[in-house]
Amino acid sequence: MTPPLPILPDPKDPRLTRRVTGHDQSGAEVELSVVEERPLTIYLNRQEIVTAMTIGDHPEYLALGFLRNQGMLKADDVVTAVDFDEEVETVVVRTQSETTYEEKLQKKTRTSGCAVGTVFGDMMEGLEDLRLPQTPVKTSDLYALAKQINTMPSLYLEAGAIHGTVLCQGDKPLVYMEDVGRHNAVDKIAGFMFRHTVPADDKILYTTGRLTSEMVIKCAQMGIPALVSRSGFTAWGVEIARQVGLTVVGRMRGRRFVCLSGEARLQRDADPAAMPEEERKHRRKSAAP
Amino acid sequence: MTPPLPILPDPKDPRLTRRVTGHDQSGAEVELSVVEERPLTIYLNRQEIVTAMTIGDHPEYLALGFLRNQGMLKADDVVTAVDFDEEVETVVVRTQSETTYEEKLQKKTRTSGCAVGTVFGDMMEGLEDLRLPQTPVKTSDLYALAKQINTMPSLYLEAGAIHGTVLCQGDKPLVYMEDVGRHNAVDKIAGFMFRHTVPADDKILYTTGRLTSEMVIKCAQMGIPALVSRSGFTAWGVEIARQVGLTVVGRMRGRRFVCLSGEARLQRDADPAAMPEEERKHRRKSAAP
Repeated sequence: MTPPLPILPDPKDPRLTRRVTGHDQSGAEVELSVVEERPLTIYLNRQEIVTAMTIGDHPEYLALGFLRNQGMLKADDVVTAVDFDEEVETVVVRTQSETTYEEKLQKKTRTSGCAVGTVFGDMMEGLEDLRLPQTPVKTSDLYALAKQINTMPSLYLEAGAIHGTVLCQGDKPLVYMEDVGRHNAVDKIAGFMFRHTVPADDKILYTTGRLTSEMVIKCAQMGIPALVSRSGFTAWGVEIARQVGLTVVGRMRGRRFVCLSGEARLQRDADPAAMPEEERKHRRKSAAP
Repeated sequence: MTPPLPILPDPKDPRLTRRVTGHDQSGAEVELSVVEERPLTIYLNRQEIVTAMTIGDHPEYLALGFLRNQGMLKADDVVTAVDFDEEVETVVVRTQSETTYEEKLQKKTRTSGCAVGTVFGDMMEGLEDLRLPQTPVKTSDLYALAKQINTMPSLYLEAGAIHGTVLCQGDKPLVYMEDVGRHNAVDKIAGFMFRHTVPADDKILYTTGRLTSEMVIKCAQMGIPALVSRSGFTAWGVEIARQVGLTVVGRMRGRRFVCLSGEARLQRDADPAAMPEEERKHRRKSAAP
């Protein structure tokens, strides 16, 4: 099936934001747009797996990507249906044969954190043997991507308080997902790639979020060889990226960036001095905290 | 026991950051400070509960606060010991009598998200009956707090990529916790309050993070009547805040802010026009995304 590309944010979708009335510093009544945040319960066949807090677009991709990134769906599992029920806020992923998810679920219970915002345990599995493809990464593409992503219409620019993750190829954003949790945004990308069998070797993943161990691990497990962010790093994120050969570029703002891993694959074909500094009006700050 | 106050960030603590070498946009070698991120496995008596990814300071408070905020420790549970073992990265919280955590753990497994960054299920429990104390909140205190918190030495200013949450009283920051996960920062505050039986009614909680449903729920369950952030809101966060009577002030930058809940308790004793705009050098942007 040909993937429906590109997928870009739809800040005018009335289901994704709500007008809320409050008061500003002078006591004047103000009305502002705030993003929605709603529960979505994900089932794998008959098993209830998780309730995610999400903005609510692309529930099918979120469910598929969550299960895939958690290792509950394998690359060769055959998905027979993905049924979203808006009224009861559930999505059921059905597979041809039983999966090993029950065992996985057990492990998750023991080793990972639910209110911690970061996952551990299974996530590290298989990383030791992982080596990413040595695809070159052009700095001209990175500059072009950052500029487009920062300035195109988005829920972030409309209402703030949201994260963005973008699957890119060369200088083109292909799938731009936003969500209240950065985990959800990247899971929606993973779900899209799984659903449409999108190759990962020639892609770049751009995120507004920090380059933590979790983000690095997810990117590597998705098989994407380059990860770019306008935000900063954690030490363990850098360590894992170096171990698996992921090219990681952070603090990318205007002409500036820092590469802390996979430098050898960077093709420095753009002159930074010729790049404009970020325009103030387009500055996305550090994105949604 | 008298609480050891104030607790402020210690950006010079060598265990919390690491010097990492990379290359900037011009290809020049650069060295920068990045925050550490390490696993910490929390036990309640003999039961392994969770592995959190944390910067690693205050493991005892993190463990206590995590268990308290998850409802696994009740306000009247007697903690007999909190044992941190740095080498094996574990902390064991021991209670006088068995708790109901095993049942809780079961529930958590079924209903909450491990890689989702937000929790559900138990977290909503008890919220229906919760009504927060009607403590007045002075805008002069909010301005004074924001200015101090934004400009005092912190890991954020040193290395970025980190969240801050601050327990305040009047115009004074009492406990300023930072962590790679904003959940951890607020859990460390909760652990401190539980350990030292700190009253919540007269406190204000300041966070660099967004005012999501989870942050609002944690603040309300901790019994703190006011929540302040320089970041934005989600619709459900606002809805819950209004339901429990939490005063919520967001987008607080320089002289500007927006109050979307609990307006009646705001005492507007400061003239916004007399407040300085944020100085650029002290601007913390939207904090760590």
